[in-house]
Amino acid sequence: MSIKITGTGSYVPALVEHNDNFIEHEFLNNDGSQFEYANDVIIEKFKAITGIGERRYAKDHYTSSDLAFFASEKAIEDAAIDPEELDYIIVAHNFGDVRHGTVQSDLLPSLASRVKHSLRIKNPKCVAYDILFGCPGWVEALIQAKAYIQCGMAKKCLVIGSETLSRVIDKHDRDSMIYSDGAGAVVLEASNEEGGFLASETASFTYDEAYYLFFGNSYNKELCRDTRYIKMHGRKIYEFAATRVPQAIKDCLDKSGESIDNLKKIFIHQANEKMDETILKRFYRLYDREVPENVMPMSIHKLGNSSVATVPTLFDMVKHGKLEDQEIHKGDVVIFASVGAGMNINAVVYKC
Amino acid sequence: MSIKITGTGSYVPALVEHNDNFIEHEFLNNDGSQFEYANDVIIEKFKAITGIGERRYAKDHYTSSDLAFFASEKAIEDAAIDPEELDYIIVAHNFGDVRHGTVQSDLLPSLASRVKHSLRIKNPKCVAYDILFGCPGWVEALIQAKAYIQCGMAKKCLVIGSETLSRVIDKHDRDSMIYSDGAGAVVLEASNEEGGFLASETASFTYDEAYYLFFGNSYNKELCRDTRYIKMHGRKIYEFAATRVPQAIKDCLDKSGESIDNLKKIFIHQANEKMDETILKRFYRLYDREVPENVMPMSIHKLGNSSVATVPTLFDMVKHGKLEDQEIHKGDVVIFASVGAGMNINAVVYKC
Repeated sequence: MSIKITGTGSYVPALVEHNDNFIEHEFLNNDGSQFEYANDVIIEKFKAITGIGERRYAKDHYTSSDLAFFASEKAIEDAAIDPEELDYIIVAHNFGDVRHGTVQSDLLPSLASRVKHSLRIKNPKCVAYDILFGCPGWVEALIQAKAYIQCGMAKKCLVIGSETLSRVIDKHDRDSMIYSDGAGAVVLEASNEEGGFLASETASFTYDEAYYLFFGNSYNKELCRDTRYIKMHGRKIYEFAATRVPQAIKDCLDKSGESIDNLKKIFIHQANEKMDETILKRFYRLYDREVPENVMPMSIHKLGNSSVATVPTLFDMVKHGKLEDQEIHKGDVVIFASVGAGMNINAVVYKC
Repeated sequence: MSIKITGTGSYVPALVEHNDNFIEHEFLNNDGSQFEYANDVIIEKFKAITGIGERRYAKDHYTSSDLAFFASEKAIEDAAIDPEELDYIIVAHNFGDVRHGTVQSDLLPSLASRVKHSLRIKNPKCVAYDILFGCPGWVEALIQAKAYIQCGMAKKCLVIGSETLSRVIDKHDRDSMIYSDGAGAVVLEASNEEGGFLASETASFTYDEAYYLFFGNSYNKELCRDTRYIKMHGRKIYEFAATRVPQAIKDCLDKSGESIDNLKKIFIHQANEKMDETILKRFYRLYDREVPENVMPMSIHKLGNSSVATVPTLFDMVKHGKLEDQEIHKGDVVIFASVGAGMNINAVVYKC
């Protein structure tokens, strides 16, 4: 038995937020002081490092569970399965449903319950739950689904990553330009075909790193101190990721028994283009290899960082020929990898 | 190989909130109108149905992850393991860390990351994540941990349920008297002893039932409409639980191959004493049996409904002889069962 992805789907929100839209924002330093540079310089520098030119925001009347539902419908259709046959619906997210203009996370019921409700699935044996694991939540949910299939608890799982980061950003923080909204989903199934899920690796670094990403106050000290936003120690995260992620991916690939020379694509979390390039270079250096051309599909320029939605959306885009110069074929060995809040790192080696 | 609970721990908050403390509350109907009864009548009636005489609230400076940490320390000590050996830390909750006097759920990083950080565990291979699954979240996390051990992904898992429901209640809602704070934890391990985890059953009812428990506005229409609280359709939940839970527990017991006559204890979620008694009666009726005396330990009178914390706390209390007239012994067959938001139901048959 193999465990394969039989369908993918994603929902890319319609609202395009260009870098230009941030030109009127009042960006402040951590201590509330003004920057010495003008916004056009800040934005230019931001783009040069992260690669982000625009990002997507969900329409005001949508919440994260809506996005998850839209992506799920497509994945189910792509897999051509009856949704009533699903044994699990797992939704990875980190902030729940935050309605536009409000600050509370609505987690009751779980987003997985909402998605299952929206899909009009009747089968009570389809277990719907949410996982919180930072940006690597979707990859981790995939690892969990694989475990259930492997030990006979499930045959078909719907694994979703969905997030509306636009609802938890501090507009006075330059880092707010990174974040985006979106959802991606796959159907994972027990299969008689060869390949599929080959190996996984997960690590949680919490001793010093637990609060590198955290929920904190606005840099505008005049705003309510009880309202908090997504915040990060960017420099520390960059160094952490550049140091830890290459080895974690290598451990995973080595575990799978596949050769680096057979590796066709690395679908890595998109938070910062320079960071991803550094990770990739260091990863190949561990094998004394140069980075092959086109091995790392990038969506960050247009989609920003949509957290848990990033990797499944990227995979869906490449699988369906929606990303220029990027394609995958049956038998290709690929890696899904992510890093984020926790701080968590994970990777999956998968044969298409 | 068996999969056994080798240690338990719980944290029962120090602040006792008696029913009397609600006498000055302004309880309102769903539509904002006044009740026709005085508060002492309302409270008396509440106690007669739910069995709740008092509940516990966390100290103002604690959050849910603190409670989870306190319970974890005890479970680890009870299991006499080195925490560095843990392969998983799973925290079940439904609202994250809600600081006293604020309305936002802090989920960044996950509560599991916070607990692992507080335990000063260095091992990055110890994977820390959160699960949202309504009140049955702790039982479901136990089922997940068992899956990881079963398929060789883990040997030792720390499984925690923690919640501070006092932070999300509407004081104008009579149902606010149900909710409580607390945390319970167990260490689940691969073992050479006989018994342990025998069978599990999970069901998610979302077609009609998804929003029986939900996040809604205060019954006081003058309060901010953007602030929401835990709300429930009590009557519907009662009927749902009384109808569905007995059969789910029976399915689980039958799957385990154990006889109803060997069943020593049922550790069931504590939300309403009358409801639990009805469930129990109907469960035994499915086997044409009378309910044996003392088979269902109850903590609700003193501890209220602490959501995911209830079942592990109850088990810990009985295991350590802290509940009058209740004890368990090696070899005893017991059931963990829960029902709650989602709407989710689950059960585990376990041999001590």
